[in-house]
Amino acid sequence: MKVNGEHFRTIWVKETDSKVIQIIDQRYLPHQFVIEDLTTVDEVVTAVKDMHVRGAGLIGATAGFGMYMATLEGAALVGAALEGASATSFEKYLSKASEKLLASRPTAVNLAWAVEKQQAAIRQGSTVAEKIDIAFKTAQEIADSDANCCQQIGHHGSQIIEAISQKKAGETVNILTHCNAGWLAFVDHGSALSPIYAAFDKGIDVHVWVDETRPRNQGASLTAWELGQHQVPHTVIADNVGGHLMQHGMVDMVIVGSDRTTYTGDVANKIGTYLKALAARDNDIPFYAALPSSTIDWEMEDGVKEIPIEERSAEEVKYIHGLHDGEIKKVLLTPEQSPAMNFGFDTTPARLVTNIITERGICTADKNGILDMFPEKKANG
Amino acid sequence: MKVNGEHFRTIWVKETDSKVIQIIDQRYLPHQFVIEDLTTVDEVVTAVKDMHVRGAGLIGATAGFGMYMATLEGAALVGAALEGASATSFEKYLSKASEKLLASRPTAVNLAWAVEKQQAAIRQGSTVAEKIDIAFKTAQEIADSDANCCQQIGHHGSQIIEAISQKKAGETVNILTHCNAGWLAFVDHGSALSPIYAAFDKGIDVHVWVDETRPRNQGASLTAWELGQHQVPHTVIADNVGGHLMQHGMVDMVIVGSDRTTYTGDVANKIGTYLKALAARDNDIPFYAALPSSTIDWEMEDGVKEIPIEERSAEEVKYIHGLHDGEIKKVLLTPEQSPAMNFGFDTTPARLVTNIITERGICTADKNGILDMFPEKKANG
Repeated sequence: MKVNGEHFRTIWVKETDSKVIQIIDQRYLPHQFVIEDLTTVDEVVTAVKDMHVRGAGLIGATAGFGMYMATLEGAALVGAALEGASATSFEKYLSKASEKLLASRPTAVNLAWAVEKQQAAIRQGSTVAEKIDIAFKTAQEIADSDANCCQQIGHHGSQIIEAISQKKAGETVNILTHCNAGWLAFVDHGSALSPIYAAFDKGIDVHVWVDETRPRNQGASLTAWELGQHQVPHTVIADNVGGHLMQHGMVDMVIVGSDRTTYTGDVANKIGTYLKALAARDNDIPFYAALPSSTIDWEMEDGVKEIPIEERSAEEVKYIHGLHDGEIKKVLLTPEQSPAMNFGFDTTPARLVTNIITERGICTADKNGILDMFPEKKANG
Repeated sequence: MKVNGEHFRTIWVKETDSKVIQIIDQRYLPHQFVIEDLTTVDEVVTAVKDMHVRGAGLIGATAGFGMYMATLEGAALVGAALEGASATSFEKYLSKASEKLLASRPTAVNLAWAVEKQQAAIRQGSTVAEKIDIAFKTAQEIADSDANCCQQIGHHGSQIIEAISQKKAGETVNILTHCNAGWLAFVDHGSALSPIYAAFDKGIDVHVWVDETRPRNQGASLTAWELGQHQVPHTVIADNVGGHLMQHGMVDMVIVGSDRTTYTGDVANKIGTYLKALAARDNDIPFYAALPSSTIDWEMEDGVKEIPIEERSAEEVKYIHGLHDGEIKKVLLTPEQSPAMNFGFDTTPARLVTNIITERGICTADKNGILDMFPEKKANG
């Protein structure tokens, strides 16, 4: 997607140095556009943990590049001579790095998926040099495949928007989204926003209600920013507003992303998603989850009971960052001594999800719908 | 209630000058405790409009004192000699002042109620001097009656909390509340928080989940502050969190206030209340609205369709105030050019409200329940 008219992905290999990964440090958006160099596994872990990068697909892609970094560091550790270096200590280093990466954001299933994909790929190399090469190529494949996946989601999902537009005789289609599942959450295009971009690019009249998405305000800061960069009409609202809008016919559809989806159709997404799904159901408004199949957990049956929900620092609730006199400042919102609690995600049960949009197409949010779309998983089960 | 151990109401007549009304300027809470003098009708209108004071009961009481101010100003206008002053210009001034007060917060039914009560009372005076005296007494009666009402709500509502506590064999009763319907929203005690204070004072083990309540954060800044001053255990959460807590058995009951209630049981309260009511219903958790009967609209049948919802400035969504280096600063949260929209309230349909708690007792949220509790209104209908 574009930033000030120039094409960007959210993560890429530095043009002049293939040992350096570059990311958009999203903590400074929407106020400043900052590119950060990542040169070590620890820097990658920090970037994921402290949310320089966030979002299902981008976390996966970052972990993929993190594993590439790990092969570089492992090789450096076992000696400059790559050929004949101790395979054991290299493997040990890689395994430690994997653990660190896996622990950086426990709810994100793409992270585990990317690390495991890298582990399996790297095992195929017979020398350390070969393993580095494989890790590099695999990281790029993960990134490319994420971008392609998202483009496909956009293709399928835009047909839903087009159908609503036709039903409304071309009147504005009002779409509510929560958090940021745009291109900033992936390598490119996005999941929930990809259909919106695709529809907008086809000339369909769309308008997006952007939930600000407390406590970290990814909607107000990221979704609003990227929609603005793409000229898509949008309005930022407090997370409390969606129900009222739906009661009064001001929302035609809700579309969100997913950080983890059970193969039974339960959707774990940013905290507060469940409340919007309830309101959509209460007002007969379709509720869609758009996601690459890499976020599907093929083992979990009951998302509400089983998906572990990350608890983040209370400071994220008590303090907020914003722009004051051209500088990003952190301000206290609560009484200093009041405790706060900060759950990162919630799970929307499948019964509230109208359809799931994946790179393969649109299906019902249940075991049959999802397994029919991914028959190869049926064979496994 | 107490502030640093000293008893306060939210509005009172200045001890040394009965022509001055004093309020707690709530815009500075929780960071600074500021008392403001109100000496003109326009200052009263500003205090209501710009939310130095807010909350159903307190807006009513403030309007009551505003009408008293209007009699003082009207008298000054028609000449220093109160006896024999032109009755017409005095009445005209009063009528203009009423209109200004009524327009300051259109959703608040207590405001209209207090202004009308004053108008009727003032009409009883035969001289301007008498009218001033009546307005002063009526303003104080409105304030006293608000405080007494709230104390009664606490008495009735605490029995619900006590029953849950007994059912849980004395384990902590977890109560979720939205916005501020504490003593800061009334003259004293509060509506939704009054039962919590009463239960806490009886020694019942309670814990309050405090929705921060964006965009103006009355939960994070006011509810957390007043619960803290009263030593009631509480935890501040983002508005997005309640559904997750309810899914996981961490909420025993929800209690909110109401800015306007139809006699059919629909509850207009701070934006986002409806979403919590949906989550409570989805998880079989009782949802209570606690309110003085002065907030009941005896004519409206359908709250969702009929209650006018105030739209406030988009700036309240785009910017937020907080403490930075000991000073209250305003920071920008969104891209500068992104539009925002700001509805102040939503309406929770009666079907989602378990019970209504009033100063007379607890009733079902429907026409029969409410009219049985207020039979004198039945006769009117």
